[in-house]
Amino acid sequence: MENHRSLCPVNLMTEIVGDKWSFLILRDIMFYDKHYFNELRQSEEKIASNILTDRLNMLEREGLISKRPDPAHKQKVIYSLTEKGIDLLPLLVEAIKWSLKYEPVDMEKYKPAVDILVDSAKLQEELRKQLTEDLLPI
Amino acid sequence: MENHRSLCPVNLMTEIVGDKWSFLILRDIMFYDKHYFNELRQSEEKIASNILTDRLNMLEREGLISKRPDPAHKQKVIYSLTEKGIDLLPLLVEAIKWSLKYEPVDMEKYKPAVDILVDSAKLQEELRKQLTEDLLPI
Repeated sequence: MENHRSLCPVNLMTEIVGDKWSFLILRDIMFYDKHYFNELRQSEEKIASNILTDRLNMLEREGLISKRPDPAHKQKVIYSLTEKGIDLLPLLVEAIKWSLKYEPVDMEKYKPAVDILVDSAKLQEELRKQLTEDLLPI
Repeated sequence: MENHRSLCPVNLMTEIVGDKWSFLILRDIMFYDKHYFNELRQSEEKIASNILTDRLNMLEREGLISKRPDPAHKQKVIYSLTEKGIDLLPLLVEAIKWSLKYEPVDMEKYKPAVDILVDSAKLQEELRKQLTEDLLPI
């Protein structure tokens, strides 16, 4: 079982995606086109540097994101979603739908995330294509 | 903002649903027809009693589950999903799909959760109907 609490599909998702912070990192790469550590640090939720480092390592270890050196700045690293990470898009879309129905979402501030629902199928397809292009070598 | 880290729809879902254990409790009520504390205690992931109590209180406070006295056993309490809780079904379905694609799901042991995908729309409708009936007074 490799330290899994169980091989239940719901449980496995929670173990692999991890926790609240991981969802926000995935959100930022998916909807806000953030690819650098310093960009990911800037979110409204104020993630601490050490937590961000920890979660990026975890997401990479679990195969949800990959990193490569930035050709323009050798010290910098670019983070992208893998196919496995991109495939969490429908789950995040359901999360957004649910929050819009029940919670006090700030629709202006979080327009890129809310917009995915306007024409969900079409926008998901476009976003998926764009995210997949990020996977290609520059 | 009532202590929300942000009013982002992805963030709000993670704050309200909470953590890994909350997802498992929702799973057990949704797919395993568990309605009593002692039933919810029995999951393979071995949730501790104090964590279960804490998460049930949180899910109730957030309006995802409701409780009522068991007419057959006055000391016992029956937990059911509310409409808000039932509406997390599509999110859990996406989690199950994703895990089936990428993780070592035990399909035999977790058949009720996996089966939801066989004819997802139809089964979701049936399950939703059944869960909603749980809301009615006995």
